[in-house]
Amino acid sequence: MVVEIGQRSETVRRANLSAIVRELHARDPLSRSELVVRTGLTRSAIRGLVGELTAAGFVSEVRPAPLGTPGRPSPLVSLNPDSVVALVLEIAVDSLSAAVVGLNGRILELIRVDRPAGHVSVEDIVGDLVELATVVRARRPAGDREIGIGVAVVGVVRRIDGLVSMAPNLGWRDVPLGEQLARAFGSDVPIYVANEADLGALAEVRRGAARGADHVLFIWGEVGVGGGLIIDGRPFTGVAGYAGEVGHLPVNPAGAACRCGSVGCWETEIGAGALLRRAGHPTGGGRAEVDAVLAEAAAGAPVALGALEETGRWIGFGIAGLVNVFNPRLVVLGGLLGRMYPFIRGILETGLERHALPAPRRIVRIVPATLGVDAPLLGAGELAFEPLLADPARWLRRGDTLTDRATA
Amino acid sequence: MVVEIGQRSETVRRANLSAIVRELHARDPLSRSELVVRTGLTRSAIRGLVGELTAAGFVSEVRPAPLGTPGRPSPLVSLNPDSVVALVLEIAVDSLSAAVVGLNGRILELIRVDRPAGHVSVEDIVGDLVELATVVRARRPAGDREIGIGVAVVGVVRRIDGLVSMAPNLGWRDVPLGEQLARAFGSDVPIYVANEADLGALAEVRRGAARGADHVLFIWGEVGVGGGLIIDGRPFTGVAGYAGEVGHLPVNPAGAACRCGSVGCWETEIGAGALLRRAGHPTGGGRAEVDAVLAEAAAGAPVALGALEETGRWIGFGIAGLVNVFNPRLVVLGGLLGRMYPFIRGILETGLERHALPAPRRIVRIVPATLGVDAPLLGAGELAFEPLLADPARWLRRGDTLTDRATA
Repeated sequence: MVVEIGQRSETVRRANLSAIVRELHARDPLSRSELVVRTGLTRSAIRGLVGELTAAGFVSEVRPAPLGTPGRPSPLVSLNPDSVVALVLEIAVDSLSAAVVGLNGRILELIRVDRPAGHVSVEDIVGDLVELATVVRARRPAGDREIGIGVAVVGVVRRIDGLVSMAPNLGWRDVPLGEQLARAFGSDVPIYVANEADLGALAEVRRGAARGADHVLFIWGEVGVGGGLIIDGRPFTGVAGYAGEVGHLPVNPAGAACRCGSVGCWETEIGAGALLRRAGHPTGGGRAEVDAVLAEAAAGAPVALGALEETGRWIGFGIAGLVNVFNPRLVVLGGLLGRMYPFIRGILETGLERHALPAPRRIVRIVPATLGVDAPLLGAGELAFEPLLADPARWLRRGDTLTDRATA
Repeated sequence: MVVEIGQRSETVRRANLSAIVRELHARDPLSRSELVVRTGLTRSAIRGLVGELTAAGFVSEVRPAPLGTPGRPSPLVSLNPDSVVALVLEIAVDSLSAAVVGLNGRILELIRVDRPAGHVSVEDIVGDLVELATVVRARRPAGDREIGIGVAVVGVVRRIDGLVSMAPNLGWRDVPLGEQLARAFGSDVPIYVANEADLGALAEVRRGAARGADHVLFIWGEVGVGGGLIIDGRPFTGVAGYAGEVGHLPVNPAGAACRCGSVGCWETEIGAGALLRRAGHPTGGGRAEVDAVLAEAAAGAPVALGALEETGRWIGFGIAGLVNVFNPRLVVLGGLLGRMYPFIRGILETGLERHALPAPRRIVRIVPATLGVDAPLLGAGELAFEPLLADPARWLRRGDTLTDRATA
């Protein structure tokens, strides 16, 4: 019996450590009082566990200067971002990125380079990523403890092994990206590959526009359009991780051919190419041309405004259907869709009014993402840190800690 | 400590009773050996718990005659369907039904009457349902123990109180159906109201075409089209129970006006009205006209076959999008869609080939529902029995059982 009780209390301790590190990871810094409220743990439990985390070098405490209110201010607990880090990589349609994310979930170093949109071999991409990673790691102090590598890619990904089943914008079919990365990085830390829209959604829910929301549909649009669905606070991936391809909802049987082989997919009406076409810009022009259209619209140019309006109508048409199907609390628009939002806000509301059922429409709000272009990288960091957030005690043991090694 | 351990073992016992009753409810009858395999409980635990259920009158055991194989055949355990029953009701576009469902999840008595499609007051509907319920209850032995009332309705339902936010086919907006039923039935048992497609999905997963599948999209089509999504074996309802309205995915901006107020919803291309129109039958003709079209097609009439083909193309177009978004393992077609399935099987496969992404397409299968027109009623029974399935011990206590009343 004693053993059983002992095991149970060790389990409880690990869960409590996890609760504290999760809260800090999402909202760092927090006062001890805020930790009490958010975790439901007693003040003395918080004190003891924060002490363990401090001894392991994961957190620091500072006592803020008194604010003129009575009583001692509660010490502020914050994660040491450098104590454990994640390497994160992104393969976008027209750029590659490498970054180091700290334990507090924020980017410590970032390098992003443009690449010409178009087909490319996985060997070239992986080679470039290794180079970028070398550069970004070199900017960091020696001896970074890397917990894992998170990778965001603009494609349909099988989560279990990082196989990219399809990435039309890269010209990939069944490309074993996870395997190739593991070989190239020769690393003993785990590599997690996922779709960039799914990761953007995860980041927005953990630390962006959808923080704390339970049912969220995240729609990420640049050249391609993807989506991530959060149900009860957790990412919904479907049977094999392919769910969320909202860009390939058929919305227009009389529409244009889509890179995916179908016709009239939503992406053909709301992606960057559609906006550029309607604005009279070269459709393969990339980020610079899109920036130009938005600048023209901001200056009041009728053609650009008309292009945004027409694109906004299509965005609203599709969102209405997704609201009918998912009944979400929040729709978050990321990437180019988020940048278009200020121009099309009214059109989206009209579109919902016309095309969504009243009941789910009354509940839902549409908001732009707040993490901008970094959302997929931040989401990749979330993937890499997940094992540590779930059970920080496993990592405490590696450091110089108060943890009883015998219970390991 | 002893108390705590005692409580724990009572919790375990209740969970084990639940596992046994759930298995029997879904697959009755089962041998004791099958129960061992399905629940993971020991043979002696099964013997004890089945004994309790037998004493309470919930189950019976019979020892089947030897089959010529060595060893004693394992006793067959089966639920006594009459031990507890549910009253279930359905408000469809052109019919009303009342039925009594037994503890084994099967229909014991059923009455279904046609009603003219069109707008109707909730008072009239509730009045008719009370009458039907009286008739169907009168066919049962006196003293039925009714555990609850489950109601399937062709509308968008707020689960928490049975408010029908919208039912265009009935002409309803924000109709407090749950409240009105509670008043009319004056009953002390709980009333559960849900959308008929959601309930059809639940029934198909528990005891039909999707039995045991984890990620299932159920699409139910008659005059209107709805859907139910099962994720990890559980119904997905969205924030407020409105999810799954796949009939109102916009698929054709150049399409017809929809009853919901939008334009080009999927329902306008694949509902009974669209099939009848294409086949040259009166679109308001109801079930008889639909039967006629299917009979003509079965006899090889080109117009009817053409109408099915065109409708099948639209069905495939929409399913492809839903497969891209949900990455389900199984798509189950119910109602008229299931009846059309034999005629459009090839067209659906072609549609998926053209419009769905290869990765989710390789995983998914499309199958017709197996429970037919009774699926929503059976699903309503599932709702009503859920509290009993989750914790049968609470109902055992009401009977003459071995349960320790002190732990109640």
